[in-house]
This record gives sequence, C-alpha cells and structure tokens, in this order.
Amino acid sequence: MTQTIAEAGPVRVAVSTVIFSLRRSAGEDISRVVIPLVRRTRDPFEGRWALPGGWLDATEELENAASRTLRETTGLAPSYLEQLYAFGAVDRSPSRVVSIVYWALLRSDDVDAQVAASAASGDTPENVEWFDAASLPPLAFDHNEIVAYALWRLRNKVGYSRIAHGLLPDAFTLADLREVYEAILGRRLDPANFRRQVDSSDTLIPTDRFRTGSHRPARLYRYNRDVELAERGPLRTPAPSAARPRTRTHD
Amino acid sequence: MTQTIAEAGPVRVAVSTVIFSLRRSAGEDISRVVIPLVRRTRDPFEGRWALPGGWLDATEELENAASRTLRETTGLAPSYLEQLYAFGAVDRSPSRVVSIVYWALLRSDDVDAQVAASAASGDTPENVEWFDAASLPPLAFDHNEIVAYALWRLRNKVGYSRIAHGLLPDAFTLADLREVYEAILGRRLDPANFRRQVDSSDTLIPTDRFRTGSHRPARLYRYNRDVELAERGPLRTPAPSAARPRTRTHD
Repeated sequence: MTQTIAEAGPVRVAVSTVIFSLRRSAGEDISRVVIPLVRRTRDPFEGRWALPGGWLDATEELENAASRTLRETTGLAPSYLEQLYAFGAVDRSPSRVVSIVYWALLRSDDVDAQVAASAASGDTPENVEWFDAASLPPLAFDHNEIVAYALWRLRNKVGYSRIAHGLLPDAFTLADLREVYEAILGRRLDPANFRRQVDSSDTLIPTDRFRTGSHRPARLYRYNRDVELAERGPLRTPAPSAARPRTRTHD
Repeated sequence: MTQTIAEAGPVRVAVSTVIFSLRRSAGEDISRVVIPLVRRTRDPFEGRWALPGGWLDATEELENAASRTLRETTGLAPSYLEQLYAFGAVDRSPSRVVSIVYWALLRSDDVDAQVAASAASGDTPENVEWFDAASLPPLAFDHNEIVAYALWRLRNKVGYSRIAHGLLPDAFTLADLREVYEAILGRRLDPANFRRQVDSSDTLIPTDRFRTGSHRPARLYRYNRDVELAERGPLRTPAPSAARPRTRTHD
C-alpha cells in the first residue's frame, strides 16, 4: 500500500465550499452577497481567513465530505450544493493539495436559524465570520481566486437557471426575486422589465396569497417544481449523509 | 512525509480526457461525434476500453497532466481543453481514485494529420480506437457515465458559446457550421432558420472568399476572434507544457 501511494506521488485531496448567502443591513438599499470564512489556527497561513473545508476521507463521497466539513467548521447546512471546480495548481499550497471545491446557497433566514440552533446547543463554531464576497481580505492559499470564480459562476448561472430559488423562501414576491438578482448581479434592475421577463418564462407559479404591509399588497409566487433547480446534467450525486464529527486541519 | 500521507488517507489523483471529434463515413448524411479510447492492458478492467489518462504527477499542473497523458496514450494534441468535473465516487475503482476529467475538441483534419505524423515517426500508439460517443461498449471504471456527462456538456455548451469553432477550420461555410451543430445535437437543423440565427449574432465575420464545387459558391466565414472561444471565467489555466515521456498505468 505504501508503495502504491508513493507511485502516485504525494498528492492529497481536500474539499472546500464557497457558501453564498445574502445580507442587508439597516439603511442599505441593496443586499450584499456574503460568505462565511474560517480563521486558520495553524500553519500554513495561520491567522488568515480561509474557506470552510477539510481533507477527503478515503471512504467518503466527495459531496458528503463537502457537507461534513462545512458542518464541522461552520455549523451550516446549505439548501443547494454543486461541484464548482478542482483547484490543483502546484504552488497553491506548500505541499501538493488538489482541492475539490463545491459551492452552495443558503437563505439568510436559514443562516439565522442554523446559527441560533448552534448557539442553543452550546455548539457555536469558533473562528467563523461572514464577509462581503466582493471585498475580501487576502485569504489563505488560492481562496481569493476560488471565491472570484464562484462569484462569476453564480452571476452567470442566475441568468439561465432557477438558481435564485436557493436564496428565497418557498413563497416570495417579484420584488423579493428581483432583489436576489440585484444582489448577485450587483446592480439595479428595472422592476417593469424584470416583471415582463419573469412573466414570459414558465418558471414561476402565482399563488392566491398576498403579502400586505406598508405598500400595496404584493402577490406571492412559488417556483414551478417541475423544473430542475439547476441543470446538473445526467450526474446523480449522492445525498449528503450524516457523518461522525471529526476535527481535521483543512486547506 | 509518510505520516502526512497516511493522515490524509490513501486517495490517489488521476486525470482523464474526453476528446471529441467528428467523423462522417462515405454514404452517411450526418457526422458522428467520436472519441478515442485506449484498451487497458492490466487490471483492474484489463481488456476493457477506457478514456485516455494517467496519474497526476506531484509536480505537474492538472491541465498539463491531461495534455501529457493524452499525448502519451493516443499521440493527440487538442485545440481546446477544459476541465469537466472531478469524479470521485468511492466505488468507481477498486482503490480510491479521484479523477479530474478534462474535455477537449479536435478537428477531424487535425486528427488525420496527427495520426499520420505519429505513423511517420514510427510511433503509432497501440490499443487506441475511435468510437461513436453515443453508442459505447461497457467501459472501464465509471467512464460511460463520464462520457455521457461530457456529451451533455458539449450539447449544452454549443448552444451558448463558440465551442463549435474547436471543430472547424479557420474558414468555413455556414453549411459546415450547421453540420457541426447537427452532429453534436444529433438532429437536422433547418438551413434558413440556422442562417438567421447566426446572422443575428455577431460571432461570425464574412470573408471575401468562396468555396466552389458542385454546388453554387458558398461564402467562407471566420469566427470573430475578439470573442472568447468559451467563457472560462476568471481562471487562468497554464498552457500545456512539454513534459518528459513516461509510461504509467492509468485509470
């Protein structure tokens, strides 16, 4: 076995996850795309912020490893998880590490609920903070490059798939939907044009419920569940499974 | 070092490449999408056909490993190479192997030229044959699933990018272009509709040359080089470099 490993060279496999959510602070008129980062407590890059992640277990599916390491480091469980890219540049780490990166979406109310649940169980993850994805400090490894690529993918994907649904509750107004697009694309969209584009697609189903408040009542919509959340192709990835908690260094 | 490897578990990293070309035999009225496969000469899956590939070297960039193993096993060098997906199912191989899969395009005249060059240098690769991508025998590992996913990606990508250019010479007629689309999509396209769609995009530039023959002269076009071949995002991947020839088992 040792000989087999040596033959293949000392290449190790890690997983990392870029998990996007939206956040709007009081006084802000547009939501920001935010991601959680974990402060490294050991070399290399001790003290720097890094994506949640860890080593791939030899007996563990890739997607399960992404879910497990995300849960272990941040306490979060996303509503949507998709492989982004394998980052394997020779110089990305002092030792040779190929990192299979996943990206995920998490609604902001789910973030709040999951953080509250962690706190209630006395299990608040340490060294985790949320950052604006568009203005990050220098991160460990090639993680700035990874986030930039994930943001690019998110912005592209929101244009031709139902990906925004991963950031919305089951029922939402057209203004809610437009705000998700505005946050991801980083610019204002014309409400009338946006409504026309949505109406001409068949991805939304109007409900008979309305949201009332300080404005005139706004109809609530839901996504047509007959349409896939995103085109994932013929690949059937296994559902994330529960795994025993472990503590691992991660890249 | 041994301790470090053991900690990460015996996970090995391989690269494989799905390299598409088009072929039309005499009497066929539509081209077929074809891929080269390599017959395995050792276990596991001895005797089965498999994608060209091999182990990742610890000092080698991923894309270089894809180019190198493709060249070593088939003698081919593609005009376009892009990462497809990391396949890492626990049960895809008797030992744990994560395979970073690339996909590539190669014009059929380049295939002929490269095969002729290999033959002229007395270096014809053994155990290589071209197969219809749409009707493959049972392949080694999960390679049927990989080819199916690569075909799905090719069909999707041809719709929203200039990917077809990777299968065309520098100057081509609209009929040439339509035939590439027909081969990839596996169905006939209406010539008049196709011309309208192409005219409404700005990806083609008409030349002042015409192809003459048994039909009326057809104008030759070229792609607008200001437009990227395909949207690869902000990632800058290193150009494939020359690497020393090696013989490796591959998965």
